[in-house]
Amino acid sequence: MIKAGIIGASGYAGQELMRLLVQHPECEIEAITSKTYKDKSFHQIYGNFMGITSKSCQALDMAHMAKEVDVLFIALPHGIASNQLTASILKDTKVIDLGADYRLKSQATYEKWYGVSHGSPDLLKQAVYGLCELNRDAIKQSTLIGNPGCYTTCSILTLAPLVKEKMIDVTSIIIDAKSGVSGAGRALHLGTHFTECNETIKAYKIAAHRHTPEIEQALSDDEQEVTLSFTPHLVPMNRGILVTAYAKLLKGYTYDDIKAVYEQYYHEEKFVRLLPQGIFPETKWVKGSNYCDINFEIDERTGRIILLGAIDNLIKGAAGQAVQNMNILFGLEEDTGINMIPAFPI
Amino acid sequence: MIKAGIIGASGYAGQELMRLLVQHPECEIEAITSKTYKDKSFHQIYGNFMGITSKSCQALDMAHMAKEVDVLFIALPHGIASNQLTASILKDTKVIDLGADYRLKSQATYEKWYGVSHGSPDLLKQAVYGLCELNRDAIKQSTLIGNPGCYTTCSILTLAPLVKEKMIDVTSIIIDAKSGVSGAGRALHLGTHFTECNETIKAYKIAAHRHTPEIEQALSDDEQEVTLSFTPHLVPMNRGILVTAYAKLLKGYTYDDIKAVYEQYYHEEKFVRLLPQGIFPETKWVKGSNYCDINFEIDERTGRIILLGAIDNLIKGAAGQAVQNMNILFGLEEDTGINMIPAFPI
Amino acid sequence: MIKAGIIGASGYAGQELMRLLVQHPECEIEAITSKTYKDKSFHQIYGNFMGITSKSCQALDMAHMAKEVDVLFIALPHGIASNQLTASILKDTKVIDLGADYRLKSQATYEKWYGVSHGSPDLLKQAVYGLCELNRDAIKQSTLIGNPGCYTTCSILTLAPLVKEKMIDVTSIIIDAKSGVSGAGRALHLGTHFTECNETIKAYKIAAHRHTPEIEQALSDDEQEVTLSFTPHLVPMNRGILVTAYAKLLKGYTYDDIKAVYEQYYHEEKFVRLLPQGIFPETKWVKGSNYCDINFEIDERTGRIILLGAIDNLIKGAAGQAVQNMNILFGLEEDTGINMIPAFPI
Amino acid sequence: MIKAGIIGASGYAGQELMRLLVQHPECEIEAITSKTYKDKSFHQIYGNFMGITSKSCQALDMAHMAKEVDVLFIALPHGIASNQLTASILKDTKVIDLGADYRLKSQATYEKWYGVSHGSPDLLKQAVYGLCELNRDAIKQSTLIGNPGCYTTCSILTLAPLVKEKMIDVTSIIIDAKSGVSGAGRALHLGTHFTECNETIKAYKIAAHRHTPEIEQALSDDEQEVTLSFTPHLVPMNRGILVTAYAKLLKGYTYDDIKAVYEQYYHEEKFVRLLPQGIFPETKWVKGSNYCDINFEIDERTGRIILLGAIDNLIKGAAGQAVQNMNILFGLEEDTGINMIPAFPI
Repeated sequence: MIKAGIIGASGYAGQELMRLLVQHPECEIEAITSKTYKDKSFHQIYGNFMGITSKSCQALDMAHMAKEVDVLFIALPHGIASNQLTASILKDTKVIDLGADYRLKSQATYEKWYGVSHGSPDLLKQAVYGLCELNRDAIKQSTLIGNPGCYTTCSILTLAPLVKEKMIDVTSIIIDAKSGVSGAGRALHLGTHFTECNETIKAYKIAAHRHTPEIEQALSDDEQEVTLSFTPHLVPMNRGILVTAYAKLLKGYTYDDIKAVYEQYYHEEKFVRLLPQGIFPETKWVKGSNYCDINFEIDERTGRIILLGAIDNLIKGAAGQAVQNMNILFGLEEDTGINMIPAFPI
Repeated sequence: MIKAGIIGASGYAGQELMRLLVQHPECEIEAITSKTYKDKSFHQIYGNFMGITSKSCQALDMAHMAKEVDVLFIALPHGIASNQLTASILKDTKVIDLGADYRLKSQATYEKWYGVSHGSPDLLKQAVYGLCELNRDAIKQSTLIGNPGCYTTCSILTLAPLVKEKMIDVTSIIIDAKSGVSGAGRALHLGTHFTECNETIKAYKIAAHRHTPEIEQALSDDEQEVTLSFTPHLVPMNRGILVTAYAKLLKGYTYDDIKAVYEQYYHEEKFVRLLPQGIFPETKWVKGSNYCDINFEIDERTGRIILLGAIDNLIKGAAGQAVQNMNILFGLEEDTGINMIPAFPI
Repeated sequence: MIKAGIIGASGYAGQELMRLLVQHPECEIEAITSKTYKDKSFHQIYGNFMGITSKSCQALDMAHMAKEVDVLFIALPHGIASNQLTASILKDTKVIDLGADYRLKSQATYEKWYGVSHGSPDLLKQAVYGLCELNRDAIKQSTLIGNPGCYTTCSILTLAPLVKEKMIDVTSIIIDAKSGVSGAGRALHLGTHFTECNETIKAYKIAAHRHTPEIEQALSDDEQEVTLSFTPHLVPMNRGILVTAYAKLLKGYTYDDIKAVYEQYYHEEKFVRLLPQGIFPETKWVKGSNYCDINFEIDERTGRIILLGAIDNLIKGAAGQAVQNMNILFGLEEDTGINMIPAFPI
Repeated sequence: MIKAGIIGASGYAGQELMRLLVQHPECEIEAITSKTYKDKSFHQIYGNFMGITSKSCQALDMAHMAKEVDVLFIALPHGIASNQLTASILKDTKVIDLGADYRLKSQATYEKWYGVSHGSPDLLKQAVYGLCELNRDAIKQSTLIGNPGCYTTCSILTLAPLVKEKMIDVTSIIIDAKSGVSGAGRALHLGTHFTECNETIKAYKIAAHRHTPEIEQALSDDEQEVTLSFTPHLVPMNRGILVTAYAKLLKGYTYDDIKAVYEQYYHEEKFVRLLPQGIFPETKWVKGSNYCDINFEIDERTGRIILLGAIDNLIKGAAGQAVQNMNILFGLEEDTGINMIPAFPI
């Protein structure tokens, strides 16, 4: 059994990780921490855990915890993990960070977009970006995984084959993304007060969302640098992300041309489902699962391709992918503990 | 492996049963039927099943199907099963009927409340009411299970100990129940059109809902006949039932007196969670699970007890309890395949 | 033109009052206050007022404000108004308090249920309970109106004729009420965070809600003292209250017997709509209006009557009724500025 | 008083028109029609009208109705109006068509996108496109108004100044639009069944929505032909449209440069609100009103401008704009009967 610790278990991503790990057949949870709910039983924080676990939240002592577990999941707001994690800790345990501190390769980019200084820039080089489908081999070797953001996971999986195969004009990419409110977490803000975000939709952080450089980094390579527009929107629903992406095709590709490329990238990927032509992703069909559904349409009038991708933001966009990374790190079947069928209607 | 068939797989209860059985470690689905979607692949009907199953829906031939399976789940509107099921079929397979045809013992009561004649009244005697926690021994011996309704499961579990122990005035019981819209099924009606039931609440079938006699039957016994008021309400959410029940206490019982009785009835029941004093059921804490959460408060000003119960209407109120019944029938651990932790926020 | 002031304009009731008064043909807003948003333009607090008003929120100086206005609306949490209002202020202006401080006649009852001492118990005697349909004559003469609570307005209008005419057993009354989330106000709490109250339903303040004594006071009189059970529930929608009330009929009254009584009480009331037999109130049909819809069903099996009432909690349950009170106080047509047709679907 | 008739009063747009016209001080409703609800009282179809109107729905006889009214509003699915309307009818009454039949100038374009032949192509020339802010002078002279679609109204108002002033590359325009479910009408479909569209988001009619040519026509002129990508999405809320539009700026314009142009176009327009820099449209702030809120951000990294626009789809996107057109046609103040402050939270 893999011994796991969760730092920041009382946030939504931490709680979802708890749910997945308690049910995981090859993992047991050794310890959990929460700053807000120190010494509280977990079922007092989340009533769904009534009768499920008697675990209580501890205060954070990362170095101590690292000695007791095989893998440490960190689910904290950005800027905290990078100030506590050390090379020494990484000798004691593997780390999967669900936060943003180890996703970007460039310290400067991180500091520009996040507005804080990075506490352990020396660790950035050894960190591996944990987008499992695209980075599996590097993940296997790693001890420090930067688990991707929710919008980024969906955006990258949706666009990567087209970009990598140089089928689109990479200066033309626009990502218009829509997320359920759980993506904003459990902390109280006026914008996520029920009566303020129910029955309305808005865009936010226009031309300024921090997932932008993360998507650009993953889509760029030595040959092409991708700069794109990314606009997130808040949708009155609990879970789910839908990405609508636009790009100019470099040639007059047909649906089948492009489908063939996507098949090549994803046909062996359990968690990517390419939908049949004419059927488009909806967040309801992936809810409660680790799947990413993808499809696209070619708009011949404009020469554009319009791509759609959908995930459950708390699973494939956070806790599920973290478990997938753990499975890869420890040589388990990649879908262990995360092969749930999406639930509907829920 | 238990071989199962599902008749009426394309309704919401049927689909939820598919989801649970596909993931059940001791069961395999042999055949499924749908009148509306005959010959359609299941994933064309429900996009969550994309990549999960290649099963298609057949036309219904109950007698033939019965020969091929160990257990037949029937998820049809009332009045159909009773016209097709026969003693002969019951020699070939066990039957768990998620509909209403085999829940009421009295043919007259059935015909009065449902307004149709019962097609196989001779089978009523051998049918067992499948409320697992209260009827486990009888279920074990049975070949025909009337799987309880959603409102009834929640109402009965919430009230049974008090009634059975004669602690309340049984003429004083009022059940005010609230359900998510999935309880109304997938058939199109103006009342369940999004813009007609979103952002509003209403009562319906006031003093006339068909689950009333089912609750009364389960709470009544040789010594006391229960007649009660039951009012269902439609709540703008996908899933969940909350029951608020009121009754006059026969004596000045304390919270602890009554808690002791509930503990006695349910402390060994995995799927009934008695909450700590002052913490009351909310549907969100049971969503996606087979749990029924229960608690109560004594109103000393009025001498009443107010009880709250919550379930996931499609799981404990339908497909989950059906699987629980199957597990009992076939001697499996009762929680096999249905021990999911409730998911939140979802 | 009536000059009005609003104290506490930045809460939901205050904002709704702003909306109604800005559109009111016989009233102009002289000044508004907000503690949280002092010196902010109102449209910065509520974006719907962009381009509508240039008013800014002042700090509270009740005595000064009273000299400048004809009517002062107070929309503050309980316990504040009673510590600031004085007999001297009431010489300068009429006061309509949307809070709870002047609703209960008994200082002791107020202090027991609200847990604070009342700051101006001497004013309680002159305060008039502003349920317009039942108290119109007293309101006309008054200078201090205790504007009723949302649950109470709906509960009292629904039950009053039956109680006053002594047709029900007053010890048997149960009110099971359901409210949209705007009733909880704009202050941030975990329970009204979107992902915590969306897609779920719960009861709260069971046997302990402060609207209970207010309902009991209004239904009681010298001849009968009413003690009842009241259970509020939080429903995932922005607006609306539905009341489901239960009581034992004292005799075998028919639907028409009771309808005749309700007609007698309400047939001249513009804002009470008695629905046709078999059609029951739904909150969607009153949203955006000052109406209270009412109907009932007799349950012959149990000898009970089940009554339904619905209002818009921010209009008839708060700001709309406050304007109705103002109209009465100043001799205007009672529906001036509040005769909006309910909007649907919204 | 203007005498008005409504053809198709029982759809959502027709009903909203009823609500606005019943409250309109200069208009009275002479007759209404409905195919589905012939001879039904309007309050039986829409419970909000209980006690408001005693009007019943007639069968449709357009020629007869035209003789009795000053203005005829047609709110029918596309393809019906064009087969019934004649030059002769237009001699008897002015017509405002809320449907799609008289919006496109080109018969060929109409027939290509709508897939039906146009029944009165000779009338297309005299029809005026009723986008009030851009077409006011032509509307004044007209007898036949093609009232714009909901998505189109919002898209055109948001983009027009930029396009007309030639500040963007017109081949680069992408419109990603999001609508509440009321836009889909009251007819029953699986996609608008509550449990199928609640808690989920999807795109639909990708690269194929019929509002596309309508937007292109309004933005194009003799000098530039606009071809753009338009993707509508269904959002789980009753009302509201948010448009997110993307385009390449032709030069390095600043926020103030562009704001000056928008001010020039809209500063005298009551129903267009240009929000302060950094504050972006949300549908909640326009709900229940005829406003269109607009703002934008310049993304210097990509050289794009991102524009946001929001309207209430049933008001500015349908019935409200129809009334605005009527006011223009009959020389009334343009905001008569439609100057409601947006309601919140609702």
